[in-house]
Amino acid sequence: MDKAKIGIILGSASDLPHARKIGDVLNELDVAFEVTIASAHRTPDDAANYAKNARSRGLETIIAVAGLSAALPGAIAAQTTLPVIGVPVESGSLLGMDALLSTAMMPPGVPVASVGINASANAALLAARIVASHDAPLADRLQQYADKKAKSVRAARTDEKSFDGLPMAPAEALE
Amino acid sequence: MDKAKIGIILGSASDLPHARKIGDVLNELDVAFEVTIASAHRTPDDAANYAKNARSRGLETIIAVAGLSAALPGAIAAQTTLPVIGVPVESGSLLGMDALLSTAMMPPGVPVASVGINASANAALLAARIVASHDAPLADRLQQYADKKAKSVRAARTDEKSFDGLPMAPAEALE
Amino acid sequence: MDKAKIGIILGSASDLPHARKIGDVLNELDVAFEVTIASAHRTPDDAANYAKNARSRGLETIIAVAGLSAALPGAIAAQTTLPVIGVPVESGSLLGMDALLSTAMMPPGVPVASVGINASANAALLAARIVASHDAPLADRLQQYADKKAKSVRAARTDEKSFDGLPMAPAEALE
Amino acid sequence: MDKAKIGIILGSASDLPHARKIGDVLNELDVAFEVTIASAHRTPDDAANYAKNARSRGLETIIAVAGLSAALPGAIAAQTTLPVIGVPVESGSLLGMDALLSTAMMPPGVPVASVGINASANAALLAARIVASHDAPLADRLQQYADKKAKSVRAARTDEKSFDGLPMAPAEALE
Amino acid sequence: MDKAKIGIILGSASDLPHARKIGDVLNELDVAFEVTIASAHRTPDDAANYAKNARSRGLETIIAVAGLSAALPGAIAAQTTLPVIGVPVESGSLLGMDALLSTAMMPPGVPVASVGINASANAALLAARIVASHDAPLADRLQQYADKKAKSVRAARTDEKSFDGLPMAPAEALE
Amino acid sequence: MDKAKIGIILGSASDLPHARKIGDVLNELDVAFEVTIASAHRTPDDAANYAKNARSRGLETIIAVAGLSAALPGAIAAQTTLPVIGVPVESGSLLGMDALLSTAMMPPGVPVASVGINASANAALLAARIVASHDAPLADRLQQYADKKAKSVRAARTDEKSFDGLPMAPAEALE
Amino acid sequence: MDKAKIGIILGSASDLPHARKIGDVLNELDVAFEVTIASAHRTPDDAANYAKNARSRGLETIIAVAGLSAALPGAIAAQTTLPVIGVPVESGSLLGMDALLSTAMMPPGVPVASVGINASANAALLAARIVASHDAPLADRLQQYADKKAKSVRAARTDEKSFDGLPMAPAEALE
Amino acid sequence: MDKAKIGIILGSASDLPHARKIGDVLNELDVAFEVTIASAHRTPDDAANYAKNARSRGLETIIAVAGLSAALPGAIAAQTTLPVIGVPVESGSLLGMDALLSTAMMPPGVPVASVGINASANAALLAARIVASHDAPLADRLQQYADKKAKSVRAARTDEKSFDGLPMAPAEALE
Repeated sequence: MDKAKIGIILGSASDLPHARKIGDVLNELDVAFEVTIASAHRTPDDAANYAKNARSRGLETIIAVAGLSAALPGAIAAQTTLPVIGVPVESGSLLGMDALLSTAMMPPGVPVASVGINASANAALLAARIVASHDAPLADRLQQYADKKAKSVRAARTDEKSFDGLPMAPAEALE
Repeated sequence: MDKAKIGIILGSASDLPHARKIGDVLNELDVAFEVTIASAHRTPDDAANYAKNARSRGLETIIAVAGLSAALPGAIAAQTTLPVIGVPVESGSLLGMDALLSTAMMPPGVPVASVGINASANAALLAARIVASHDAPLADRLQQYADKKAKSVRAARTDEKSFDGLPMAPAEALE
Repeated sequence: MDKAKIGIILGSASDLPHARKIGDVLNELDVAFEVTIASAHRTPDDAANYAKNARSRGLETIIAVAGLSAALPGAIAAQTTLPVIGVPVESGSLLGMDALLSTAMMPPGVPVASVGINASANAALLAARIVASHDAPLADRLQQYADKKAKSVRAARTDEKSFDGLPMAPAEALE
Repeated sequence: MDKAKIGIILGSASDLPHARKIGDVLNELDVAFEVTIASAHRTPDDAANYAKNARSRGLETIIAVAGLSAALPGAIAAQTTLPVIGVPVESGSLLGMDALLSTAMMPPGVPVASVGINASANAALLAARIVASHDAPLADRLQQYADKKAKSVRAARTDEKSFDGLPMAPAEALE
Repeated sequence: MDKAKIGIILGSASDLPHARKIGDVLNELDVAFEVTIASAHRTPDDAANYAKNARSRGLETIIAVAGLSAALPGAIAAQTTLPVIGVPVESGSLLGMDALLSTAMMPPGVPVASVGINASANAALLAARIVASHDAPLADRLQQYADKKAKSVRAARTDEKSFDGLPMAPAEALE
Repeated sequence: MDKAKIGIILGSASDLPHARKIGDVLNELDVAFEVTIASAHRTPDDAANYAKNARSRGLETIIAVAGLSAALPGAIAAQTTLPVIGVPVESGSLLGMDALLSTAMMPPGVPVASVGINASANAALLAARIVASHDAPLADRLQQYADKKAKSVRAARTDEKSFDGLPMAPAEALE
Repeated sequence: MDKAKIGIILGSASDLPHARKIGDVLNELDVAFEVTIASAHRTPDDAANYAKNARSRGLETIIAVAGLSAALPGAIAAQTTLPVIGVPVESGSLLGMDALLSTAMMPPGVPVASVGINASANAALLAARIVASHDAPLADRLQQYADKKAKSVRAARTDEKSFDGLPMAPAEALE
Repeated sequence: MDKAKIGIILGSASDLPHARKIGDVLNELDVAFEVTIASAHRTPDDAANYAKNARSRGLETIIAVAGLSAALPGAIAAQTTLPVIGVPVESGSLLGMDALLSTAMMPPGVPVASVGINASANAALLAARIVASHDAPLADRLQQYADKKAKSVRAARTDEKSFDGLPMAPAEALE
């Protein structure tokens, strides 16, 4: 396996399904990654070490996944100069709004790139875009991925069965 | 079938049930419509084309249905001078509040008519009102639709069975 | 003066500045309008009458402006089949969020077209789009209005003085 | 049956379970009431008539139950000088927050007494307190109702079975 | 001075301007009232005593004014069977939203009648409506008060100066 | 059993599962506690008495659990100088946001220590930390508890089975 | 000066006014404290060290003050077994709501005691209560502090000048 | 001047102060950038063109700044595979909450990296981190920038004058 370019760090083992979704997208794009678990609150030194070691270990971007008072993305960003992507996870009562604000509203000096609540796939795509900013073949694969998504929207548009009798706009209406 | 006066554009095939509800109301009012799918983010040029072609194709109003960061209604409104109705869809974690704000809080210069979250039927009625602003027979059908709704409220008021023993106010109390 | 096509109804005299902003846009687009004041709560029968008379008086669209528990747009929409645009006004403590929800979250059967909080100019443009759905010269004026807005954005883009030394992207970057 | 002192008006037949809960409390307190259905938006004139007739019909308080953009309590309050209690109902996507703000944030001049979201029983108790402000025997029954509630809290406190082994504070701790 | 029928209790001396606004309305309606200050948190026993004594002292309704975690209305309602009106006051950072929820979202068994944030005048009117539910002359004065409000809206509607050139709807439009 | 150092007071018997979770943590830490039920609204004098007696009975901290307009923690804090921890409980429609604001936003002079919504276990740990501020052996047990939590995070990190094929970061990455 | 029992840690020098308010209350209660500045994001290791050293240095409680995505209280709590009080500070656009959620919604295992937004004085009182849980003279001083607060409320109640003609409830109404 | 690596696109000329703040940070880090203005709603084709041309023009990252229903970041992200950073701007009534949700809650397939509301400086740092992911000297400059920030926090900590008599924690407390 290639050396990981993207490190995924989870605040809790219960976030592994998010890592799975991130991994699926990165695998499809053929970007090497690794996954680990460390809590900003229960194992803060481990999390800090992961961030401190990241650049020298060859990582180019870190994705941090956490819910509630989601301190992990900020704690990672505080200990590295790599770009850090935060995935605010819906957990507990507040629909993920607590995690979104904790992830996005960072104080000046330490940036975190927040994606939407539970937006694991978009975190993967954002990480891939970052790597692709200096990796032309990956940029091509990202373009193909986008083209595939567009094609699937267009396929849905012309799938008479799913319209089930609703009158469809003609193809030329969108050209 | 008559030429469509109302164009319904969905951000995703998963929004087809909304098109169905809109279509049911428009069919009841005998207003011709068409449905298509184009994402402001995954197929932005298709969406823009649909808006650019709309007036010359004979559409009088466009209903755009989208969730999350619901950019579709605004993207459509940016490319046409037709009235554009946005239906913010509940999707993901935030109960549709994200879609409502994205749909309603448009910057000055490009208006969108927002209905409530998931309010597909009201979007249909609003579109019909717009067409009816210069179509007297449709205005009459809209009035009959409203009368039918009122009649159904009044029928419920006098349905002893549904009151199941609760003391009912006398009819004259509302006259 | 031409017969009014757009009726503007304010919940309170304190909303007259909103009518002024709406009027400025409609004047620029050469669409005739009229303004009145009637509260859904303090003069409910007046408000209802205005709505009941609107279509026969020749109005094609009504803009209702109100804050707090903004009942006016819905109260108007309940008594006419014309399209009704609601402008939720910021008033009191809750930043206009109360008015936005009261305006947008209408029950099924009675639609209101909500614009953003305090979005008077957009309400005017939306009303004009509705009239223009069957008034080609007005549609042209709306297009010119949009072109003027675009031109003003482009002018800002090339105004070296306002950039005050910030490096400007070359023109061809946006072509 | 006694002549109704409390009028309960529902925005929709789907709110009948709320009337049931209100009725259960009022029956327990032996306060006569009546129930009707009229929508502020679909049958606005019926709702207005109910309010206009209420005082002369002998009602002393009106409870209005509605969800979404809950205009009914305000529409009723606008047409009577009786005290009007609004019950904001959770309906649709926004957890009843839309109804709470629509009910509570009334403009100056027309008061509504808002209870909590879905708080039908409290609306009944509030209505009974209003009647009891000049009905001493009902005030006594309300005191007995409160004493019963207190007794039930105290019974729970000493129910060893429900504590299931948790160490219980001694009775004297609360004396 | 007449014996007070309405008791106004403030959580803090800083709320005296609210008492002033309430008093102005009650004076205009000629309803006797009294004002006192007791905090649910700093002088909880005083507040409880006020509520316990209220009915026997001849009060018919209590208005409790408080901000932040506004416990006062509920604390008063817990110790009396009189109707209790809560005025949630904007104080501190959260625009009064904390006070509104603390006031309105009472648990079952102890009702509070919440008015809007800072809605002192409406609290006064609601209290007067409660007294007027069995005081016909006061009911008449309330009607006159409402008529005066309506008249003032209508006066604004025909005040050409305040329209300052905006085209006014004709009087018959609202008849 | 040892004399209780921590008093847990519930606003309602329906909160007993929260007492259970608090008790489980305190039992694991070997801190004596007691549980009781008293509502700030239905049995306000009982609740006040519990607070007034608490210090002389030997309690060192009180945990108050309540939902909706959660007045209990503040009512307890108003009657004792012991530290009071509030657990805002999700109940009804607003996801516990009402209880969080009611618990946390106390007026100056009467402090409550709010934990997160439904955060019973954290309330137990916070109470134990307070007792441990002058109880070294308990401080040691708290450290062991934290170490155990950290160990469990680390165990999850190296559990290949739960990673199910996802590439794991090497151990040295976190050292 | 006595050895500090309470450590106050600020996320930024701009929070020094909060330390001043905390210090004023602690000075009045004669509780020794110290103040320092360390950011969870800009000097994370300093903040962690402060927490790790706190217990052995003799501190009994830590107050952590921070705004926005307020990670500091949690970062401190993660590295000590002392009780940690968080003061969410209003800063930037969201009124302190971001800081409140970041402070209060901690994941299980690491508790933070949140006070209200900007509630510096209450944080001081809470810290003093914690120290007083095993310091009887301080408990007495806290009681005197509370008595003084109550006395000041009562003084306001009888200050005719501040009532400025509003009718005052008689003293016996609150006895 | 070096060829721009970072493109800053503003939705409106009124956002130029944000570009200034971004530029100040990028200048300090010696990263070349360019600024332009194009609205997603008023000049949608210009905005799309800028995104389509960006990669071939040598840009490595785009920062898009917009308020209200902030469609610009998503519209840019839809037309490029470069990483796109969105800066939600506070504008109008809702404190920037509308812009934050519009920016962050992107649908699957098109990622945007959201920073906090008005967080222009953090957007610049995030963009620089992305460029630095494959530019070691810039990574060093970012580390120096972070060190400088840390040093400034430490300088504030030992600045007796700003403490103005507040007792300072000893240096060794943080080591």
